[in-house]
Amino acid sequence: MKDFSQSASLSPQAFVNQVIGHRSGVNAFSQAKSRGFGEAPVNIALSKYWGKRETSLNLPINGSVSISLPGLGTQTELALSEGKHDQIVLNDHTLEPHAAFAQRLSRFLNLFRPTEHTIFQVDTHNTVPTAAGLASSASGYAALVLALDDLFQWQLSTDKLSLLARLGSGSACRSLYPGFAIWHRGERSDGLDSYAEAIDTTWPDLCIGLLKVDIGEKAVGSTVGMQQTVETCELYQAWPEQAENDLKSIQAAILEQDFERLGQTAEHNAMSMHATMMATWPPILYWQPESVAAMQQVWQLRQQGVAVYFTMDAGPNLKLLFLKQEKPAIMQAFGKIDVIEPFAI
Amino acid sequence: MKDFSQSASLSPQAFVNQVIGHRSGVNAFSQAKSRGFGEAPVNIALSKYWGKRETSLNLPINGSVSISLPGLGTQTELALSEGKHDQIVLNDHTLEPHAAFAQRLSRFLNLFRPTEHTIFQVDTHNTVPTAAGLASSASGYAALVLALDDLFQWQLSTDKLSLLARLGSGSACRSLYPGFAIWHRGERSDGLDSYAEAIDTTWPDLCIGLLKVDIGEKAVGSTVGMQQTVETCELYQAWPEQAENDLKSIQAAILEQDFERLGQTAEHNAMSMHATMMATWPPILYWQPESVAAMQQVWQLRQQGVAVYFTMDAGPNLKLLFLKQEKPAIMQAFGKIDVIEPFAI
Repeated sequence: MKDFSQSASLSPQAFVNQVIGHRSGVNAFSQAKSRGFGEAPVNIALSKYWGKRETSLNLPINGSVSISLPGLGTQTELALSEGKHDQIVLNDHTLEPHAAFAQRLSRFLNLFRPTEHTIFQVDTHNTVPTAAGLASSASGYAALVLALDDLFQWQLSTDKLSLLARLGSGSACRSLYPGFAIWHRGERSDGLDSYAEAIDTTWPDLCIGLLKVDIGEKAVGSTVGMQQTVETCELYQAWPEQAENDLKSIQAAILEQDFERLGQTAEHNAMSMHATMMATWPPILYWQPESVAAMQQVWQLRQQGVAVYFTMDAGPNLKLLFLKQEKPAIMQAFGKIDVIEPFAI
Repeated sequence: MKDFSQSASLSPQAFVNQVIGHRSGVNAFSQAKSRGFGEAPVNIALSKYWGKRETSLNLPINGSVSISLPGLGTQTELALSEGKHDQIVLNDHTLEPHAAFAQRLSRFLNLFRPTEHTIFQVDTHNTVPTAAGLASSASGYAALVLALDDLFQWQLSTDKLSLLARLGSGSACRSLYPGFAIWHRGERSDGLDSYAEAIDTTWPDLCIGLLKVDIGEKAVGSTVGMQQTVETCELYQAWPEQAENDLKSIQAAILEQDFERLGQTAEHNAMSMHATMMATWPPILYWQPESVAAMQQVWQLRQQGVAVYFTMDAGPNLKLLFLKQEKPAIMQAFGKIDVIEPFAI
């Protein structure tokens, strides 16, 4: 088995200090506003991120390309507080400090406390309908980083905010942008070149259909799933090269507005990622029986001449890709489906 | 993409002539009996054959290991005839000469006609219950080759019969043996070293459970599926090495009667083969929704401490692997399931 791992040359704290520079530290208090606000969309990868070469800095084995979904995401308010522990409110519910979500958020916030005793109040709302089956960790960490930037008045560039969001959740680095974004794999062991940038174009006719199969808890979280794949999946050895080729192909398809190429590459890339998951030991299968039924329905539609493709993340739901002209056929075939038009005016 | 293809240094006819030697040709008539009979079992690959390096001689990219299922297979009677075209009777139904099955059989028989005008009568019975969801082409070509050997009185060694059966259907070369068999990949471009041999051991407690999901026609035949995988699946580049390692591991597990190793390697190998299928373009998915439900059931049983694994061929059905002591738990969990004990006395 190939070893894809790289050692980090910076600790997460040293990384953060590098990125936010002199603006951190105790004097951060004097510059801080009373409240910071951040808002970010969820994003769907068109060519996937699967596998870390370094886990403490969330450095990916391969780059990825995504599209953000306007109107679906996270809004976060942040304030400094004098309590004993962070107060985290999620969708109007105050979380227990030892809840998994609260602990993960607090661990991330540890990187940004001006002093050891700094306590945060976080009030966060996901505008993702739970029924859409979309992960909110990407929009969540992107919104939180924007709220930190606002609170502490760092005025960091979006590239730098993308670097910070990456530490919370890899794919969060892509949620700093509307529209298309590309997360560069980067080469450096300090992780300072692994961030996302916007792909500066729109595609007014592009539609995303959210096909919900299941909203239950994942059997295997993405981080654990990735790690198991990298460590036990023989087929994964061929993944990094495919992923980089797919990334270039998706990028070209976006720039040329070549929908067939976009759809084919995105679906092939997603199926290949899921292939690496199920070829691990023990097998990781995020699909439900209904996922297979939905795939078969997509393929059948395609055979009938409807240009529709799908992508899937580490879960059982399908995200359909099609152009506006196919919307009636898609709505008719799938009935209950949320259609997002990322570039609609 | 790597190129796995090799050129054949013999035509199929030259290959057959080499294998059966001087016993072929016009004088074959004088030695022939009035009827030949052959009988062979179906086999289930524990490490899979997926991908041909040469298609005219059915030379595999990787070796494989199988177990034959006694009592399930094909019985074939063969006679020479003076008709205009081969008469092929399958399960008591006379086939139209242009039926796909009849055409494929006749093309195979072309390799064995003592003269251009030799016509065969084939009467073949599959003792595989259709409901079991087992492919009968492996047992079919093995039985046919045995019937040819009997009819023409070649008295070929089983190795040589295995070479001949391979031309009809790759996996047929493994159906010449009861119990475990290993199909050596071979290296030669004439294909004369790519045949199956028995693994000379028994495993009295080993059980195979046939879990039927669907018996409909396959969307994509194995030959086409393999070819598409070899040509378009990037992940397939890592398959040959995994396949050879899995083969060695399965072989060792059989010799050591290490059931956990057998089950784990067989399931991982099958999942990896299916992974290469779905990572082709367009994707090939032999699974049905019910296949996923059945897999989930197997994994759940395993979590409950029942040592059960599965393998799957190019179709939606699961073949369960377990030891006799787990039979009650398996029967209880799956209800309608055919259990085969390949080594039961």
